[in-house]
Amino acid sequence: MTANPTAPILNLASDNVSGMSQPVLAALIAANAGPEPAYGTDQWTGKAEALLSTIFEHEVSVFLVATGTGANALALAAMSPPWGAIFCHSEAHVLDDECGAPEMFTDGAKLVGVPGVGGKLTVAALAPVVEHFTPGVIKSVQPAALSISQVTEAGTIYTLDEIRALGQFGQQHKLMFHLDGARFGNAMVSLGCTPAEMTWKAGVDVVTFGATKNGCMACEAIIFFNKAHAEAMPYRRKRGGHTVSKGRLLGAQMVGYLENDHWIDNARHANAMATALTEGLKTIAKVKLPWLTQANEVFVVVPKTASARLAQAHIRAAPWGSTSLPEGFSIGQDEQFLRFVTSFTTTRQDIETVLQTIAG
Amino acid sequence: MTANPTAPILNLASDNVSGMSQPVLAALIAANAGPEPAYGTDQWTGKAEALLSTIFEHEVSVFLVATGTGANALALAAMSPPWGAIFCHSEAHVLDDECGAPEMFTDGAKLVGVPGVGGKLTVAALAPVVEHFTPGVIKSVQPAALSISQVTEAGTIYTLDEIRALGQFGQQHKLMFHLDGARFGNAMVSLGCTPAEMTWKAGVDVVTFGATKNGCMACEAIIFFNKAHAEAMPYRRKRGGHTVSKGRLLGAQMVGYLENDHWIDNARHANAMATALTEGLKTIAKVKLPWLTQANEVFVVVPKTASARLAQAHIRAAPWGSTSLPEGFSIGQDEQFLRFVTSFTTTRQDIETVLQTIAG
Amino acid sequence: MTANPTAPILNLASDNVSGMSQPVLAALIAANAGPEPAYGTDQWTGKAEALLSTIFEHEVSVFLVATGTGANALALAAMSPPWGAIFCHSEAHVLDDECGAPEMFTDGAKLVGVPGVGGKLTVAALAPVVEHFTPGVIKSVQPAALSISQVTEAGTIYTLDEIRALGQFGQQHKLMFHLDGARFGNAMVSLGCTPAEMTWKAGVDVVTFGATKNGCMACEAIIFFNKAHAEAMPYRRKRGGHTVSKGRLLGAQMVGYLENDHWIDNARHANAMATALTEGLKTIAKVKLPWLTQANEVFVVVPKTASARLAQAHIRAAPWGSTSLPEGFSIGQDEQFLRFVTSFTTTRQDIETVLQTIAG
Amino acid sequence: MTANPTAPILNLASDNVSGMSQPVLAALIAANAGPEPAYGTDQWTGKAEALLSTIFEHEVSVFLVATGTGANALALAAMSPPWGAIFCHSEAHVLDDECGAPEMFTDGAKLVGVPGVGGKLTVAALAPVVEHFTPGVIKSVQPAALSISQVTEAGTIYTLDEIRALGQFGQQHKLMFHLDGARFGNAMVSLGCTPAEMTWKAGVDVVTFGATKNGCMACEAIIFFNKAHAEAMPYRRKRGGHTVSKGRLLGAQMVGYLENDHWIDNARHANAMATALTEGLKTIAKVKLPWLTQANEVFVVVPKTASARLAQAHIRAAPWGSTSLPEGFSIGQDEQFLRFVTSFTTTRQDIETVLQTIAG
Repeated sequence: MTANPTAPILNLASDNVSGMSQPVLAALIAANAGPEPAYGTDQWTGKAEALLSTIFEHEVSVFLVATGTGANALALAAMSPPWGAIFCHSEAHVLDDECGAPEMFTDGAKLVGVPGVGGKLTVAALAPVVEHFTPGVIKSVQPAALSISQVTEAGTIYTLDEIRALGQFGQQHKLMFHLDGARFGNAMVSLGCTPAEMTWKAGVDVVTFGATKNGCMACEAIIFFNKAHAEAMPYRRKRGGHTVSKGRLLGAQMVGYLENDHWIDNARHANAMATALTEGLKTIAKVKLPWLTQANEVFVVVPKTASARLAQAHIRAAPWGSTSLPEGFSIGQDEQFLRFVTSFTTTRQDIETVLQTIAG
Repeated sequence: MTANPTAPILNLASDNVSGMSQPVLAALIAANAGPEPAYGTDQWTGKAEALLSTIFEHEVSVFLVATGTGANALALAAMSPPWGAIFCHSEAHVLDDECGAPEMFTDGAKLVGVPGVGGKLTVAALAPVVEHFTPGVIKSVQPAALSISQVTEAGTIYTLDEIRALGQFGQQHKLMFHLDGARFGNAMVSLGCTPAEMTWKAGVDVVTFGATKNGCMACEAIIFFNKAHAEAMPYRRKRGGHTVSKGRLLGAQMVGYLENDHWIDNARHANAMATALTEGLKTIAKVKLPWLTQANEVFVVVPKTASARLAQAHIRAAPWGSTSLPEGFSIGQDEQFLRFVTSFTTTRQDIETVLQTIAG
Repeated sequence: MTANPTAPILNLASDNVSGMSQPVLAALIAANAGPEPAYGTDQWTGKAEALLSTIFEHEVSVFLVATGTGANALALAAMSPPWGAIFCHSEAHVLDDECGAPEMFTDGAKLVGVPGVGGKLTVAALAPVVEHFTPGVIKSVQPAALSISQVTEAGTIYTLDEIRALGQFGQQHKLMFHLDGARFGNAMVSLGCTPAEMTWKAGVDVVTFGATKNGCMACEAIIFFNKAHAEAMPYRRKRGGHTVSKGRLLGAQMVGYLENDHWIDNARHANAMATALTEGLKTIAKVKLPWLTQANEVFVVVPKTASARLAQAHIRAAPWGSTSLPEGFSIGQDEQFLRFVTSFTTTRQDIETVLQTIAG
Repeated sequence: MTANPTAPILNLASDNVSGMSQPVLAALIAANAGPEPAYGTDQWTGKAEALLSTIFEHEVSVFLVATGTGANALALAAMSPPWGAIFCHSEAHVLDDECGAPEMFTDGAKLVGVPGVGGKLTVAALAPVVEHFTPGVIKSVQPAALSISQVTEAGTIYTLDEIRALGQFGQQHKLMFHLDGARFGNAMVSLGCTPAEMTWKAGVDVVTFGATKNGCMACEAIIFFNKAHAEAMPYRRKRGGHTVSKGRLLGAQMVGYLENDHWIDNARHANAMATALTEGLKTIAKVKLPWLTQANEVFVVVPKTASARLAQAHIRAAPWGSTSLPEGFSIGQDEQFLRFVTSFTTTRQDIETVLQTIAG
């Protein structure tokens, strides 16, 4: 099959438009040969689990699945009863972009959105919302979990101090703490910290460790730092249809992704491309950046003349909307809010092309 | 990574112990290059959908997913309300081997098992069970769907006449008719019929078209012959976490699987290997076959001395149990019931090795 | 409003066709006066809970609800995860007569029916079924609970030894043990035992204690002998819409029902009427009794000429069907299987009328 | 049983602290006599259904249940698929006070709260929220229903024009329109309109018609103006455990409630008492009223010294909190926000007592 004639020349709308990076593909090809036992008992999955324990400096319970929505929904189901409240940002992916998957997998828990500038939760904003739900009062769903996205929906990043503060708040209110790491690598590289520092050392109980966007084809890990929390997960995963029978598909991708710090290289590259794009955008008149680029996403307001030029050049960004813009930041009638996402496949030439097209 | 030292030398316990066959892998490698839009809007998924319409001689609505459990559970959810009854064989995979996934995805429908020799439903056995559930009587879950497996859990195959009879019965009782085709190709090759004859021409409304066991890594298609039945499926699939973001993973596998009748070749080979195994087994003393091998599964009762030899030789078959044995067929204390499953990777040498080991 | 002109003169189809008995009505009238706090914090509910602890000789956690279906579904939800198996008789009310309520409240657990003569489970029949579901094997729903009805759907009664044997089996297999006591009083009176002997002393963990059929209008108690099992029940009940706001409705009925052994008197009367009916039926030619009457239900096969006479006389019994008939017991084309249920309102004259009409 | 010694002398915290009014009790006593067929086929339920069709000037499908939470949850389940969005006020009872019952009965639909002063939704506030959920975009739950409370959680009332505007908006966006009428009578009396004007003539599709708070013990009607919307409701109600077996309990209450305009008399009385309370409060210094009293609820901010006096006098009001206060209205550290609810049992003397106690 040849290049897709209807596809954009340059698609920066999301980081799910690329295939696998070479080491991931190579691992999958290697894993394809020979028999392997099924349902995650293969050697590749075993290797992936061991690598994750090493990388997180903690014995972890790992559940590989093929989709981020599945991973998040299963993770939250392990953290909240059906009558629980799960607190997250009002624009969180789990709240707004998964067609109610968390409600399905939790059997009806309530996701409670809390607003915050730049897609970020703060303890100050959370506290009154959480305290509205009184433990023991039966009319009220019961506070159960806290979920943040790192990188956030707005492309921003929580500092370690911010995560720790949320972790402490969660502990005080007996909330399990979930980190949706669809872009875990990009966040970590941006912070310059270890996986452990960004998670269990900061109070996180469960991580959705995304690998798909940053080099795999379809691979996410649900990671528990406390085995007791994961006890029912084998049944939940199977029952959700997320236990892949030829489990090597997932194991091999994750091994190729993790070995030799490949995932870190990919994240570093994507972040660098986003930074280059941001730096370039800053130099273009009439272009406005609501938030600092901190990982591999660039949110930008451009004149509609510029977005028209992008369309004409078959360059795709995602039209965006947000209610978490900084105070005073507004978008005019003749302006367009866009999201660009870079990935391991983005080149400096791509960035140049985008910048030149916007500059006009 | 080298060969798995703890794995069996020869694993015939299931047809999910192999990787992808070469044309499938080749398609996946080809599909890996370049950008593709996400969530099933890629060209490979489009091509797969078109191929399935051609192969089924019918415009079909296709939903690709990564697991058979997900495919079956989603299919049944489209066919029954939460207060519905879904009739199937008492040993059906959907009833007995999916950890309640159909109950989860249907929000609590009741799977009603009906016994039958050799894993097969008959109209005679079905009728009194279905008629027990009175339409309009609120204490009773309401008859909603009929689900058969082709190949059955017992490795047998419904004839076209038998499927048509069930289809007619279903229509009379306003039951949607589902065919779990985890081994669709093996059944079709065995019957020597077309996909259309085995499905919509016989009254089937929805098919789970399995590709994983017969050459793919993780790819199943939910196929609807009536678009109206599929209206809610995009939301159901997304909500179930089964909409793969880099959809080319599924599309490419299916294209590689279907093109050039590759799937038929694979099925034919697997069936031939099973036939060879059966023919060999018939010549060995003290070996008993409860059912005729009709596809790629061989069910056999061997002396425990023989099963011990298999274990010692690191040859794996699946220890089996069944309540649908033919009348008068019994298994003694010193006998072991085993299932062997052949696949596109099984060789004549493998069959010889198994036979020699059993013969002792 | 006057007598219902379309209603039968004499309705023995069920014990839910009567209103409240006088002491229950009197308690409700008394409770109607004055303010009471809501949601079960009223003094009547408090009194009812205390009475139940006394009667059961055990500190119990009590949850009053208005319907038997609600009570059973909530009880089972406290005993099984969504991926659990609940074992019961194949004709159990929870399996066959509640439109899937247990599946709804458990979020999709599987009710597994086990056949048995006279509506009764035996350890011998249960064992192979339970053992089919292997703990820890993820494809399999996990053994979670055992549920029996006392009185059974067939009007029979488990002896204390039989309950104890099931309780022991349950404990060995880590199954929670539920007793559906929709006709608890009738069974207890028939056995001549105490509530404690029939429940926790025999290994029962949770009881649905029915009061509606035996004297109340709408009142059932879910009773836990271990407070830990009831921890989530306040939320489950509220969330299921079963927390009555003017809780005195339920509390008062239960107080009127329990005080002065009124419930025992009612049950004794109903049982006596059923015994009288049985004794009379035994003397009528061509009348066949499949099971011994043990409580307040009489199952009988009569010539269709006799059932026609009953219809003509506006006497209603429930047409019945069962797959748990004793071996060798058959029902001919010209015969009709009927269930008669007596209650606190049934008179000796009613019984005479029925007998004379059947005798012709 | 004598007066509850721990209960408050005067409980105005809610209108669920009273029993039945006399005509309701009288109907229940009358209905208690004689046999009646079960599960809502009794003559009382039939009469109630006929009365509701008359009162609403429309042939309606009626489903009586015992609780408001059950009624609301069942109503919403008939209006939204599991992947639907139900829009309501951010303080709506269905969102905030039912422990997730709507999520349970809808199998996981999302209740989306929209803020608004005085507990009221406006088209202006709704529009951007509804439009955020794009029909056909699978990541997004799909707009399904609109739910308002009349009387609102804040005791205010929608005008007929406001309901019509919401109805029109709903129609434009293909949203089913639900009215939670827990205090239906109080609202109607306050508006001086007919039941029809407040519901189907204004675009409402489904009503939860509350009778419990205004004179019954436990009785609510789910009312559909289009029979097609109610098709699955018999199964939903049974499955939810909300089909009362001795259905006369519900039918009789509703008949007693509706006949001779008793419900209107009760509502008129309760409203008059609330108006009297409000008028009195206006004359007391340091007392602040955030909203006009429009039905039978009075929301008031009093000095903490006054609330302490109420407590000491064993007079109970409900401590309140709200995020829908009018702009500029604030509550000081030394103030307490309270809700008083009047009912058919409230006397002028009660109001005087409250006023004198607050005045100090």
